[in-house]
Formats: sequence, structure tokens, C-alpha cells
Amino acid sequence: MIAYARNGHSDKFGIPRQSREESPICTRIVLEPEYSVEEALRGIEGYSHLWLIWGFSENISEQVKTRQELCKDQDKTPLGWSPTVRPPRLGGNTRMGVFATRSPYRPNPLGLSSVKLIKVQRDDGQGTKDFRLELLVSGADLLDGTPIYDIKPYLSFSDSHPEAQNGFAEETKDYQMKVDWGFISRSWKHIGSTLPRNWLEDTTYILSQDPRPAYQDDPQREYKLDYAGYTVTFTAEKDTIYVKNIQKIQK
Amino acid sequence: MIAYARNGHSDKFGIPRQSREESPICTRIVLEPEYSVEEALRGIEGYSHLWLIWGFSENISEQVKTRQELCKDQDKTPLGWSPTVRPPRLGGNTRMGVFATRSPYRPNPLGLSSVKLIKVQRDDGQGTKDFRLELLVSGADLLDGTPIYDIKPYLSFSDSHPEAQNGFAEETKDYQMKVDWGFISRSWKHIGSTLPRNWLEDTTYILSQDPRPAYQDDPQREYKLDYAGYTVTFTAEKDTIYVKNIQKIQK
Repeated sequence: MIAYARNGHSDKFGIPRQSREESPICTRIVLEPEYSVEEALRGIEGYSHLWLIWGFSENISEQVKTRQELCKDQDKTPLGWSPTVRPPRLGGNTRMGVFATRSPYRPNPLGLSSVKLIKVQRDDGQGTKDFRLELLVSGADLLDGTPIYDIKPYLSFSDSHPEAQNGFAEETKDYQMKVDWGFISRSWKHIGSTLPRNWLEDTTYILSQDPRPAYQDDPQREYKLDYAGYTVTFTAEKDTIYVKNIQKIQK
Repeated sequence: MIAYARNGHSDKFGIPRQSREESPICTRIVLEPEYSVEEALRGIEGYSHLWLIWGFSENISEQVKTRQELCKDQDKTPLGWSPTVRPPRLGGNTRMGVFATRSPYRPNPLGLSSVKLIKVQRDDGQGTKDFRLELLVSGADLLDGTPIYDIKPYLSFSDSHPEAQNGFAEETKDYQMKVDWGFISRSWKHIGSTLPRNWLEDTTYILSQDPRPAYQDDPQREYKLDYAGYTVTFTAEKDTIYVKNIQKIQK
């Protein structure tokens, strides 16, 4: 681990399913003290995009490991991993090969995201010796605290294939919900001014990506999503998300 | 490790410096027995491009580790890695930050390559029980035997940024040499028909990428390159590579 991610995604629920350039969500990639060295980033600001290679959350790694442990004990199930997964965007019932998906449940739980580099910034640790270099990026699909294993420049001449065929992901790539904030207009006076900067814009984007588990389609059901210190309660019907409530998370 | 690479690059010298779509070089990504499961690839042939996350050769990892070991013993050099590297395409004398390059000499020696998927093929182990699934791909920048840690589909809507700014790599992206095979025309009759299929096309591509160490520019100097069982001897002057000899490698 050379760095970790810091953003408002305190909860797995709501993390965009892929990195997307149009995402407004900012993430700080905080370099570990050993790697907070100015020289190690020399020239990086000449690049508009970066690659992050990162680790899926410990929960998931643990699940994979546990499964591997369990399977070791059973002679008749040699696989410590599942050859197929059910992509949520296919409704959650269709099984695809794990190497044909970006699912976190994979033999080596490595994630890959291209992000936009906004700037390099410095955190002087408020007078302590804990100086850190940070990359401020947008478009990441990372949980707060995600460990980062590598940062590389994005090279358009080797990495960009705009005409690539997207297999079964093609049909879902433009999928987007409308977001209706109307229900909370009465309480808006109270809460609006206390929200963090960009919170509304970020949360609208997250909701438009439809964070519901794919196999659920009950318009009565209320869902909760934590983002940047606030819990949003919402329902969903057809192509619209209805926000019902916003509440500050009590720590 | 879920798979390893098989191709003609038996020698680090000559491996293209990045994956490139125009590269004619084919590589077999051979899945390990545990992962040679048809279901694990279900749907993958709907994608034209794939990502490979792989490990830089053991030599390099060993070099990094050795350096880390050495540095542990010396209180005054806390860094087990070098914050800057000298990209060969910048002439070998300019230092850039390691995270602003794709250099193999990095804290976590992970490589990243987008490749074109040609097809999935099966190797039945010639009657033995050693059945293997393979992905035949083109455009990889991998040494023969490279361990592969993950295979992911390339998603154009999240991975493709044709307008990305390429920093200092921009000026070198179209760099290419002419390749002159004239010198060996006399011996061609002997050797031409014995060469593996595509050998000439592959080797022309490799030479056009200028495999010389960047800081060498002596037109008298002879270089040797091993590819797919044959050694090519060449010299270089200005923008042209002159092939002097081809010789079968004696095993």
C-alpha cells in the first residue's frame, strides 16, 4: 500500500459501479508518509488522467479468503473462488464469467480505475511532523479508506480504445435515473445550508447511478445511503429516485 | 497468479515499452489449471479488448527487494525505492517521478496492459490431464513467462480517454525507426523459409520501436536481440535500424 483514498463514501452502498469521467465526486489519494516525497510525483501534473490499482475492501478479501479456507477442507470443491458472478446491472440473475466482469469477487481482489487528476496538494499535518502529499482526483469509484497499491500515468496512445466492444456491459452503460428532491423541499431551509460543499451535486450523481441492489424493484421500499456525513432516505419507481429525507449522521 | 504469458520475447531486450494496438505480436495468456474453467470466461468474447494486471519480471522485483533489504540496514536511507527514474525515451538522463512513469522500478512492481482479444482457445495437453484454457491476445508488452494476476474486460465508457494529456510521454509517442533488412538479402534464401510464421513481421515491429538502451548512440555498435528462437544482430544510425544477421539460437 502506497496511499489510501479519502472521500465521502463511508458506506459501500452508493459507490459508483465504475470510474466515470462525468462523476463530480472528488477523492483525495493520500500518500503514506514514506511515499510523500515531492520527487516521486515530478512530472505528474503534465497528465490529465491517472490509473489507480487498488484493493477491494477487506470485507470482500476476507470473504474470498474465508471461502478459500473453507474449500481447502473439502476435497470435493477445489475452487476457492467462484468462476461466475451475477453483475447487478444485468438484473442480478444472469451469471457471467468472473474474468468477463469487473466484479470485486475475483481470485485476486485488485481494482482498476482511471481518474482525472485535478491537482497535487500538500497537507502539512497542522504543524505536526506528519506531512502528506495528496493527489486530488475526480471520477473514482472508491470506498473511503481504500488501499492504493500503484499510481500510473494514463497514456492515451496505449490505453485509449474508444471503439472497444463492451460485451454485455454495452447495454447498461448509459443507464441513469432521474432524481426528484421535491419531497424534502419543506425541510430544505433547515438542512440546506448545513450540507458540505458539493454534497447535493455529488449525491444527485450517486442516486442517478441507481445504487439499489439490482434484484430489488419494490416502489414501497425505502433505501438508505450514507454520503459525507449525511444519510439520504429514498424510494425508487420506474426511472425515478424520490428523495424522502436527509439526516445528519450522529457520531 | 492466475495465468502466465507465452510469446517469443525470451529476452527483456526488445519488449515494446507499452502495449500498443498496432503491434502484431501475439501472446498466449495461459490460465493456470485451477482457473482453466470454461465458466470463468463466459461472456469474455463479447469484448474486443482486455486489461491484464501482471508482475514485472522477478529480476526487477528482486532488485527492488534487495534495495529494500539494503536500505533497512541503513538508518540514514529510509527509502527502499527510488522516488525518480530515468525514462529511456527521454534519453536516459532526465529524471521523472516514479508515479509519473510506467517504469518497472516502482514500489509495487505491478504492470498494466490493455490488449486486443483475438480468441479463447483450448490446449488439451496432448492427451494428458493438463487441460488449459488460453486467451490469444495481441499488443501485449510482456516477457515470456510473465505472471498474470488479473484479467478484466476493457470498458470504453470508463477506460477510454482519447483526449487525455500525456505529459512528457506525448513527444515520444510516435517515435519509430525505419528497418532495413538489405544486408541479409544474400543469406535470406537459407534462413527465410525456416523462420516461424510472422517472425519477420513481428521482428520488424520490435526493431521499429528502437530497442536500444536510450543513452547509447554509436552507429558502429552491434546489438543483439532474441525473439522466438532467433537472434538478430543490428546496428542503428539516425532514424534507421540495419539488420546484419539472423541466427537460430542453439539450445
